[in-house]
Amino acid sequence: MSDLARFSINQMTVKQLSMPELVGACLDLGIDNVGLWREPVQEYGLDATARLVREAGLTVTTLCRGGFLTAIEPEVQSRALDDNRRAVDEAAALGTDTLVLVCGGLPAGSTDLRGARERIAGALAELGPYAEQRGVRLAIEPLHPMYAADRCVVSTLAQALDLAERFPAAQVGVAVDTYHIWWDDTAPRQIARAGASGRIHTFQLADWTTPLPRGVLTGRGQIGDGSIDMREWLGHVEKAGYTGAIEVELFNDGLWARDGREVLAETAERFVRHVAG
Amino acid sequence: MSDLARFSINQMTVKQLSMPELVGACLDLGIDNVGLWREPVQEYGLDATARLVREAGLTVTTLCRGGFLTAIEPEVQSRALDDNRRAVDEAAALGTDTLVLVCGGLPAGSTDLRGARERIAGALAELGPYAEQRGVRLAIEPLHPMYAADRCVVSTLAQALDLAERFPAAQVGVAVDTYHIWWDDTAPRQIARAGASGRIHTFQLADWTTPLPRGVLTGRGQIGDGSIDMREWLGHVEKAGYTGAIEVELFNDGLWARDGREVLAETAERFVRHVAG
Repeated sequence: MSDLARFSINQMTVKQLSMPELVGACLDLGIDNVGLWREPVQEYGLDATARLVREAGLTVTTLCRGGFLTAIEPEVQSRALDDNRRAVDEAAALGTDTLVLVCGGLPAGSTDLRGARERIAGALAELGPYAEQRGVRLAIEPLHPMYAADRCVVSTLAQALDLAERFPAAQVGVAVDTYHIWWDDTAPRQIARAGASGRIHTFQLADWTTPLPRGVLTGRGQIGDGSIDMREWLGHVEKAGYTGAIEVELFNDGLWARDGREVLAETAERFVRHVAG
Repeated sequence: MSDLARFSINQMTVKQLSMPELVGACLDLGIDNVGLWREPVQEYGLDATARLVREAGLTVTTLCRGGFLTAIEPEVQSRALDDNRRAVDEAAALGTDTLVLVCGGLPAGSTDLRGARERIAGALAELGPYAEQRGVRLAIEPLHPMYAADRCVVSTLAQALDLAERFPAAQVGVAVDTYHIWWDDTAPRQIARAGASGRIHTFQLADWTTPLPRGVLTGRGQIGDGSIDMREWLGHVEKAGYTGAIEVELFNDGLWARDGREVLAETAERFVRHVAG
């Protein structure tokens, strides 16, 4: 098995590449797996993307992203549910079994984290069965606590599992991303909990580098550049029974400013050096 | 009892004020408590500051800050211990019973959070008795997880209490600061745990506002401007038996650019409106 066999490149890491460029670069570099995002998929066309990756023999490991399910107004929440059903349909069309959910932040003016988390649960009760019927699992991604207000009120694996476990694992699990959980000494225990019920639906990597940029969205470090011991976290998910793809998802202004193929080659090389090799 | 009876203004909130200006503004506004920082105290002079606040009848609720106890090299750690002993002496001279500790981030190139946390424990074993003999309690401040790499490897109240509980409460407790813990649904339980052993050594407030600035240090929101329900957190610490001062500590470029007395008056007014009133 090649060192890259489990490597998946999340499209956002090299968003400067068009869909055909991304697929071509993967073929050139011996990369078999990609994680896709809805916006570039829609831009290139859903059917065209599905055909492109299928003919290239690539596996789509995840689709990012559904979610944003914390609205208070029923009509806003209803539109969000419609959009999430479309995201499930897109995941199914692309042949991936995993739709990653970024669950949403606090509505403007609200300080009620608990209420927001409960509205997510209500939405999952509708989306879970819809997804399962289409062979798609929802993966709640706990985002780093620095995003609790404006992107995702689910800040820890424990919170994500408290939500996911209300539903069958074939409907709802979690996304384990090193960037969001590396600081949390209870996360290894929660990974074991997730593995025990078959709920590790994807494992993603990004390194933690500082200083964080304004808005803290686009500072995810290249693997090996930061404070996270990737092999340690891989060990945790493997001990919990995870054997799936390992997706590298970096939002990084510096990487986006460079040649995308070069960044992809570098990311694959870092993966071999710091994760799989 | 006045609505401001428990209000303490942390000096950093209005760092544009000199020590005498701060003391004068407190007297004018009916503010009885201040939290001080070592650097401005040293600049004005330790004895001069102690005399100034004593003659004004102000209570010094905390001194910020000791800590930075994660060095790997013994000589660096030894210098840090010396500096922390001086911080304890300064706290005693100022008449406060609480020295806040920001424990330190990962040493350059390290990914070993656990090891860093253990080195803090080793340092506390030396500093705790030294502080207790001088009537000073060390307050481990868990900092928001976004600071785990570069400022403080203690990211949650649970982690802080795991450290503190190795020592008597008269030596080591915790600082509960809404800014750092508001996202954490396990924090109320940890506040109860801290209260049960008399380890809530200070309670501090700042609000959570976004977008975070580059470096994420100077974006702490004015009370009432952000996502945190202050009364809810006050309820948690009071239920845990805390009856002490409530310190407002804001690092905020916008507030620092304004007139300091105006910011102090606004902060007191916000305290009455969102916390005590």
